[in-house]
Amino acid sequence: MIPRTMYTVYVTIHVIPEHVDAFCAATEDNHRNTRLEAGNLRFDVLRDNDDPNCFYLYEVYQNEDAFRGHQQTEHYHRWRETVADMMATPRSACKATSIYPEPWA
Amino acid sequence: MIPRTMYTVYVTIHVIPEHVDAFCAATEDNHRNTRLEAGNLRFDVLRDNDDPNCFYLYEVYQNEDAFRGHQQTEHYHRWRETVADMMATPRSACKATSIYPEPWA
Repeated sequence: MIPRTMYTVYVTIHVIPEHVDAFCAATEDNHRNTRLEAGNLRFDVLRDNDDPNCFYLYEVYQNEDAFRGHQQTEHYHRWRETVADMMATPRSACKATSIYPEPWA
Repeated sequence: MIPRTMYTVYVTIHVIPEHVDAFCAATEDNHRNTRLEAGNLRFDVLRDNDDPNCFYLYEVYQNEDAFRGHQQTEHYHRWRETVADMMATPRSACKATSIYPEPWA
């Protein structure tokens, strides 16, 4: 059995207001294509309830290798380049591993 | 059809090192019981990859009412009281709504 460690990334992105629509379109493309990756388990695109210019990406991969593979994809590079100038501040990410639910269960 | 808005909460918790084991046990109890709530869709307990004393909870509810209902449960109150003195700093939470995947799909 291939070990599944549930490698997770929670990205926080503050978008310049006039770029919000274009950011959402680019992120939908990244979301949709990432969900087709064999090693991707989840990709939630979230909008802050109080700040409509603040977005979060919650991404779950089977393991770190699957995440590194994602970073090599054409759709990830396309997203990164497209949104680079849309951010009000550099994006930040929390990288973590699931302990519950037990990923090996 | 009941609207599903995918109300999400991402909680960051810095735990005092000597309380980490007790924190994990209390959080496993909260995780397990929350997953039994009709309005809860997901509850991932995560440990930071670089800081073993930093934990995240990614919780997804059908809507805000379901989240408010969670906050009234016995297991949530038990968790909150048990871990109150285990934190190195007050916990913080990002509350957000899913835009992709479209929660009504």
